Amino acid sequence: MHRGIRIGRVVHRGLVIAKEHNHAIAHEFLQLLTPFDISFFAEHVLFLFLLANLAQSYIIIIKWANVLRKKCIITQKEMPLLCIFSSFVLLSHKKCVLLQPNLNSKTKKDMGKVILTGDRPTGKLHLGHYVGSLRRRVQLQNAGDYDRMFVFMADVQALTDNADNPEKIRQNIIEVALDYLAAGLDPEKCVLFIQSQIPELAELTTYLMNLVSVSRVQRNPTVKTEVKMRGFEGESIPLGFFCYPVSQAADITLFKATTVPAGEDQEPMLEVTRELVRRFNQVYAEVLVEPNILLPENLTARRLPGTDGKEKMSKSLGNCIYLSDTADDVWQKVRSMYTDPEHINLNDPGHVEGNAVFTYLDAFSCDEDFAAFWPEYQNLDELKDHYRRGGLGDMKCKKFLNQVLNKFLEPMRARRAEFEKDIPEIYNILKKGTEQAREVGAQTMDEVRKAMRIDYFNDTELIRQQAERFANK
Amino acid sequence: MHRGIRIGRVVHRGLVIAKEHNHAIAHEFLQLLTPFDISFFAEHVLFLFLLANLAQSYIIIIKWANVLRKKCIITQKEMPLLCIFSSFVLLSHKKCVLLQPNLNSKTKKDMGKVILTGDRPTGKLHLGHYVGSLRRRVQLQNAGDYDRMFVFMADVQALTDNADNPEKIRQNIIEVALDYLAAGLDPEKCVLFIQSQIPELAELTTYLMNLVSVSRVQRNPTVKTEVKMRGFEGESIPLGFFCYPVSQAADITLFKATTVPAGEDQEPMLEVTRELVRRFNQVYAEVLVEPNILLPENLTARRLPGTDGKEKMSKSLGNCIYLSDTADDVWQKVRSMYTDPEHINLNDPGHVEGNAVFTYLDAFSCDEDFAAFWPEYQNLDELKDHYRRGGLGDMKCKKFLNQVLNKFLEPMRARRAEFEKDIPEIYNILKKGTEQAREVGAQTMDEVRKAMRIDYFNDTELIRQQAERFANK
Repeated sequence: MHRGIRIGRVVHRGLVIAKEHNHAIAHEFLQLLTPFDISFFAEHVLFLFLLANLAQSYIIIIKWANVLRKKCIITQKEMPLLCIFSSFVLLSHKKCVLLQPNLNSKTKKDMGKVILTGDRPTGKLHLGHYVGSLRRRVQLQNAGDYDRMFVFMADVQALTDNADNPEKIRQNIIEVALDYLAAGLDPEKCVLFIQSQIPELAELTTYLMNLVSVSRVQRNPTVKTEVKMRGFEGESIPLGFFCYPVSQAADITLFKATTVPAGEDQEPMLEVTRELVRRFNQVYAEVLVEPNILLPENLTARRLPGTDGKEKMSKSLGNCIYLSDTADDVWQKVRSMYTDPEHINLNDPGHVEGNAVFTYLDAFSCDEDFAAFWPEYQNLDELKDHYRRGGLGDMKCKKFLNQVLNKFLEPMRARRAEFEKDIPEIYNILKKGTEQAREVGAQTMDEVRKAMRIDYFNDTELIRQQAERFANK
Repeated sequence: MHRGIRIGRVVHRGLVIAKEHNHAIAHEFLQLLTPFDISFFAEHVLFLFLLANLAQSYIIIIKWANVLRKKCIITQKEMPLLCIFSSFVLLSHKKCVLLQPNLNSKTKKDMGKVILTGDRPTGKLHLGHYVGSLRRRVQLQNAGDYDRMFVFMADVQALTDNADNPEKIRQNIIEVALDYLAAGLDPEKCVLFIQSQIPELAELTTYLMNLVSVSRVQRNPTVKTEVKMRGFEGESIPLGFFCYPVSQAADITLFKATTVPAGEDQEPMLEVTRELVRRFNQVYAEVLVEPNILLPENLTARRLPGTDGKEKMSKSLGNCIYLSDTADDVWQKVRSMYTDPEHINLNDPGHVEGNAVFTYLDAFSCDEDFAAFWPEYQNLDELKDHYRRGGLGDMKCKKFLNQVLNKFLEPMRARRAEFEKDIPEIYNILKKGTEQAREVGAQTMDEVRKAMRIDYFNDTELIRQQAERFANK
């Protein structure tokens, strides 16, 4: 317990200092600590301690714990352990009483899961969006395992490479909102908002931009890929587009998101965000939260090909099935879908790899679909075997896929039609969500400004200090 | 008048379209026009027309005029000419009556002078600041030849390369404010504010960043120089610092500044601002205003050397005379000032070029000072002649310089001492100024969002259009 005692001393010393109300000294003292490891404590214990008669110190010790956390390189999960250990030490010094308070709920909330995702409103959402993120979001929303969930329309980000065409974005916000609602996002359960209506995002971006170098952004693989995708030549990358990893870090951190459902390709972006969080918290104060990426469950979901079999479903390639397509549209698109160019005659053996119909079935069909629409097969494996053997026509598979797709698209269409009847109400939903989001954002920005000590006019201590300084000159 | 008639037709056609209230079509129609030149109209006529019974169309025509202006490449000054011409055409079509309204005052105000300057609050202000900008500002303020004058503390900009040290900025805001007030800036005449307290600046920066490329900023000579000055290696330029030309463009344009008093070295920055204004106005709508630089009157004022004769007066070189220095401080610094290293014995001929004492006398002394403190000479030329001939000691010149400096520093010291007595009041002044600035900023941002058509929730026309679109589906 040699190491443990050392923490104990620190906390005890800290308490004494806290009693003197000299936080600055306490902070400096803790900065002097060397890293050590406290991972020998058992996991998953959820006690919390409270100082009996010095409520303020509770907060201070939590702050120290944060400092210690950095020094100890312990995880968020181990935080309560540190607290409980400290409390035992304090108890043994007769400085506090140990409580097992009903603070668990509060703690859970404070340390809870905040989910954040969004889309660039540059077009209607399609099946690629659905399998890649939207389906997952609806599941997450309905699982309810979070404190807050934010889903936003990234119009500011869309403007970084559509500056000339705000009308496109303006027209598509309502489309994306309808797609969201039709897919099952529920404004009672998650906050739907529009990025540009949260000016605090721009403010936070400004300050985060000071904490990362130009070359760090330049080296980011996601930025490199996106620049290439958009065909920007070296000369023509808009500055706003170049800076979007930082703007995205602001999107995430303004809402203290812990969990960002996104594709693997976004991992380098999340890494920039985590770096910025660490840097901000180190330079100023522990305000921002490091987010984790939540990857799609399976490979198919990571990227759905277009109906032409091309790698990506994209509006500009004209190979999308939209969530808002009619049953007729869907059938036209499925009917002309890319399959296996070597599967010419019915009895030719077929390939399911690179065959869009089968990739879609991988992504969307389940055993129940076979029972319902094609009981000849138990599951997709049996179907694939038959197709590989030969003797199974493409059109039959396409008809089945069409049924599979319409099974979940039909209820969406019905919901969309309902929502379309009252468009002003959709704007109202977005407005309300934006107001909620803005409240959270404003709260974080207050903390950010306070941490950066640039909230001059609210900082009575600063004004007092300065008045004193000049009085004593 | 062939070309002129063509404009007339356009405006007439426009009016007809306006009557149908179909602005989108009108806009598209005007986009089709080819450029032509209407500079054959006489200059400086200041009539304005109003449509008699269709007030709305007035605004629409002004909008068209803006479109036409871009196509015609005519200047702001020629705008009223276009209006008057259009009105004659409209008159001849019996569509309106011509008025000569007392709108001149309004026009003057709209087109009036708005001055904006600022300092990075990273240290107390010194004589370099005084001759370089502060003196000029006080003159401009007292001349009163402007609609509005803004002077701000650029703490956000200072943070771009002082992210680790917000405390430095925090401590110096009050010093700079005291220097401003002591030097004669009057919060009744100019708006004093703190940059970070105007979040609209960050918002505007975000949108302007989309209108300039990374390489355009990279090529900017001011950025190059500043990067070099701060010793940033290629790897370490903070992104925020790199983007500061755009942030500066936002500072200027949010307040629609027409006039920016600054050194020659800032001209490339102003050029970026003007480019961004032109681009914004072209892409969205005529909202922002192109600023002009107001250069210092004379060469001496452009850069004052340090007391050690080195090129620049700078805190880090320890060669500054601060506006808040005591008389004793000033004398110590003047006494040890760099003069002419070849002027060793009293009778040696002396050099006035590169001699800091004479550079300072160039910048600060006038004939009256000779009459008051050293009547042996009529003016600086006579003094220089004697110094060049030899037989004039450095110490005599230094004593005179000391008198010259204290003549204007003494009243500043007295004013500063008064202001220092009530520090909370200084914060109050800044707070009030910030509120005024924010009001102007918020107004511009409203116009910006409207021009970009991203003010979705206030845009009843958008909501109506979308509702109609889905109803007719």
